[in-house]
Amino acid sequence: MKRRSFIQVSSLAGAGVAIPGIQAAQSRKATRKAPRSRLNVAILGSGLRGQSHIGLLLDRDDCDVIAIADPDQVMVDRTLQMFRKRGISAPRVYQDGDEDYLNLLDKEDLDLVIIASPWRWHTEMSIAALEKNCYVGVEVCGAFSIDECWELVRAQERSNTHLFFLENVCYRRDVMAILNMVRQGLFGELLHLEGGYQHDLRGVKFNDGPGGGSGVKFGDDAFSEAKWRTIHSVHRNGDLYPTHGIGPVAMYADINRKNRFTHLTSMASKARGLHNYIVDHPMGGENHPNADIEFKLGDLVTTMIRCNNGETVVLHHDTNLPRPYSLGFRVQGTKGLWMDVNKSLHIEGMSPPHRWEEAKPYLEKYDHPLWKRHANKAEGAGHGGMDWFLVNSLVEHAMRNERPPMDVYDAATWLAITPLSEASIAGGSMPVTFPDFTRGRWTTAANTFATSDAY
Amino acid sequence: MKRRSFIQVSSLAGAGVAIPGIQAAQSRKATRKAPRSRLNVAILGSGLRGQSHIGLLLDRDDCDVIAIADPDQVMVDRTLQMFRKRGISAPRVYQDGDEDYLNLLDKEDLDLVIIASPWRWHTEMSIAALEKNCYVGVEVCGAFSIDECWELVRAQERSNTHLFFLENVCYRRDVMAILNMVRQGLFGELLHLEGGYQHDLRGVKFNDGPGGGSGVKFGDDAFSEAKWRTIHSVHRNGDLYPTHGIGPVAMYADINRKNRFTHLTSMASKARGLHNYIVDHPMGGENHPNADIEFKLGDLVTTMIRCNNGETVVLHHDTNLPRPYSLGFRVQGTKGLWMDVNKSLHIEGMSPPHRWEEAKPYLEKYDHPLWKRHANKAEGAGHGGMDWFLVNSLVEHAMRNERPPMDVYDAATWLAITPLSEASIAGGSMPVTFPDFTRGRWTTAANTFATSDAY
Repeated sequence: MKRRSFIQVSSLAGAGVAIPGIQAAQSRKATRKAPRSRLNVAILGSGLRGQSHIGLLLDRDDCDVIAIADPDQVMVDRTLQMFRKRGISAPRVYQDGDEDYLNLLDKEDLDLVIIASPWRWHTEMSIAALEKNCYVGVEVCGAFSIDECWELVRAQERSNTHLFFLENVCYRRDVMAILNMVRQGLFGELLHLEGGYQHDLRGVKFNDGPGGGSGVKFGDDAFSEAKWRTIHSVHRNGDLYPTHGIGPVAMYADINRKNRFTHLTSMASKARGLHNYIVDHPMGGENHPNADIEFKLGDLVTTMIRCNNGETVVLHHDTNLPRPYSLGFRVQGTKGLWMDVNKSLHIEGMSPPHRWEEAKPYLEKYDHPLWKRHANKAEGAGHGGMDWFLVNSLVEHAMRNERPPMDVYDAATWLAITPLSEASIAGGSMPVTFPDFTRGRWTTAANTFATSDAY
Repeated sequence: MKRRSFIQVSSLAGAGVAIPGIQAAQSRKATRKAPRSRLNVAILGSGLRGQSHIGLLLDRDDCDVIAIADPDQVMVDRTLQMFRKRGISAPRVYQDGDEDYLNLLDKEDLDLVIIASPWRWHTEMSIAALEKNCYVGVEVCGAFSIDECWELVRAQERSNTHLFFLENVCYRRDVMAILNMVRQGLFGELLHLEGGYQHDLRGVKFNDGPGGGSGVKFGDDAFSEAKWRTIHSVHRNGDLYPTHGIGPVAMYADINRKNRFTHLTSMASKARGLHNYIVDHPMGGENHPNADIEFKLGDLVTTMIRCNNGETVVLHHDTNLPRPYSLGFRVQGTKGLWMDVNKSLHIEGMSPPHRWEEAKPYLEKYDHPLWKRHANKAEGAGHGGMDWFLVNSLVEHAMRNERPPMDVYDAATWLAITPLSEASIAGGSMPVTFPDFTRGRWTTAANTFATSDAY
């Protein structure tokens, strides 16, 4: 009996319930060997982010992208062009409406499903893929409700596979060098962490076309994320995109590994940026219909989170204003601190007293073994190479059906920040407690993120 | 009838109550002319901060420092030495215990009283001096209670003089250049502000002697602020020193001038820094009696404040850890932002899109008229020259008995952050509302801070 099919059978027996759709997948999967040396991969959502993942997969010799699902003809055409350019046979395309991905999951013989669709679909698609016992890699966003986070956790627990949460910033070179320094104790005992998503997305929220031009439109007749992302800024007020900041912070602070987030409070400024952008834009103006929209998303949303081990976290969300891109990391412990905005650190006993030092020599000295080993392969990959590490880790873990370094509990915890921050703001910055999605497992779990130089 | 005595009489008549002690002072003051061209000044608390003010006063030809009150013989000797060195006749000294300042106020013929005593005395001394109708300049700290802030407000309102809150950072050259830029609209409509007090005070909290040496002692047999400041870190958990950060922020956001702080939430990290310092110090160690102290002050205390006009504020308090000095200012509006930690800014339409620019050329171009006019006089004064501007403004306002640019309502509002943050932390980061100390006057008041280049 193969390891994977054994686990499947015993897991289903243990669950004691019939999960619709699992039997069909199981009959195929049971014939397979694990670990596998080659993966059948499907992409749900082949927009710009999905295409980035596809590009990295097509560069590898251990993955076959056999199917994609996306209702957007423009994005499907772009994706198929990627295969043609490389002389690789085209994937089967499921584009008959938003839910054709269910047919994909039903018909295709898959090992790995990568979800890079609009936020609204992440959880539904993840659950459907987990129910087929496909290894799932799901892109980042923020949740809509705490219940949705629980659904995701339960779907993974019912399956005999895993969910890998695709937070690429955890693999950023400086972020990993700092992780290395944290683990070697250079900052001492951690006390305070900061991060966030501070990125002028006005051009993205009002993206007009493939040329990257920005108008003042969003929704169906806009391009890429402007089709579906901008509407969240109209109706919602909270930290809508917490994971690029919180992912690295959670790894530094061993969240869900003998530490956890206990509660948060959030505060939002007034909303001016998107309205002003529409009014001041040459294609907009006071009389443009979108000038009447009252955007609910505060231009600055700040969240403070407390950890069970006594650390504090500050998280920024700032996407409607002119500003340089900055994730605003700060890592501070009893022996010193690093800030990325000034590219500087201070370590007691190493740095001159009361003085900043340039971080660069430290980042080079403490370059993470994973980066040292693979930097040449990552060159040219998205977001400074970190996307290569992300996809490599996803594929390697999926090959072995291993628990990922960022698992469903991390996903649920980080995603939960969005509805918790919305609740806090709606309640006048009241403190809101985090659910323990691990149901106590955090008291014994260990941090496996980037603990080897293999993947 | 002189203007000043007229105001006094009519004000007392209006109040309709006899305030103890005021009659005696009035009989002397009523003989004076206002505006005055020369001031009799007393210093309550002639420690290191008081001596800094005395130095600036002795450099002027319009002030006579005629009396000091301080029970600490070492500090009195140092102060008298300053007079001797300059060949100026010594002030009368009131050093018979903590309350001898009351005798000073009773006996001396004063125009201006500067209070630079330990925090515990600021309010009592201010009220006593206001009751004598002396113009009061009081040093910064954080309050102990909201009631104390109200007492201060009521004492000023009962008097016919003013309280000038001595927040020197409002006069920092870059802070004032940014104020100039804010007022000229370069940042657009303000949305978010940050500041704080991030200063490794371990050497101050355990100051061992006049040589500046640091041991692990505090209290009676320590030196300067270690005598009285450190004990607050033992017992209190909150933002103990909010004003260096909030003063400039309040001026940028016109707080108490058609805007006000509505509520805050605070969060504290665990406390490790001071204990570690004692244990790791060559004069300390695990067996030192102070190693048993459980310091209550979280090493990082972070506070979020919301303003009535929709701006958000983040305030940091970080005084127990190895780190470079940084007040961590950030000023962000619809058109751009400045951060002092990276000495950079971004202004839409001026800076390259999505890029930081060095702040320096802007700080030079928008150098505040007050600095342009007086920079040469400020050279060499404390804290990069800002103390000269502070004392100059205090003296000039006192000469005219004018309402100061940082008045008793600012003092009460900024001081209140400490007890409000303590309450929020004690309540699990619950939101806490700010009292309106102005009782509605903020709805019509104007910001007079540094609106001319005179003083």
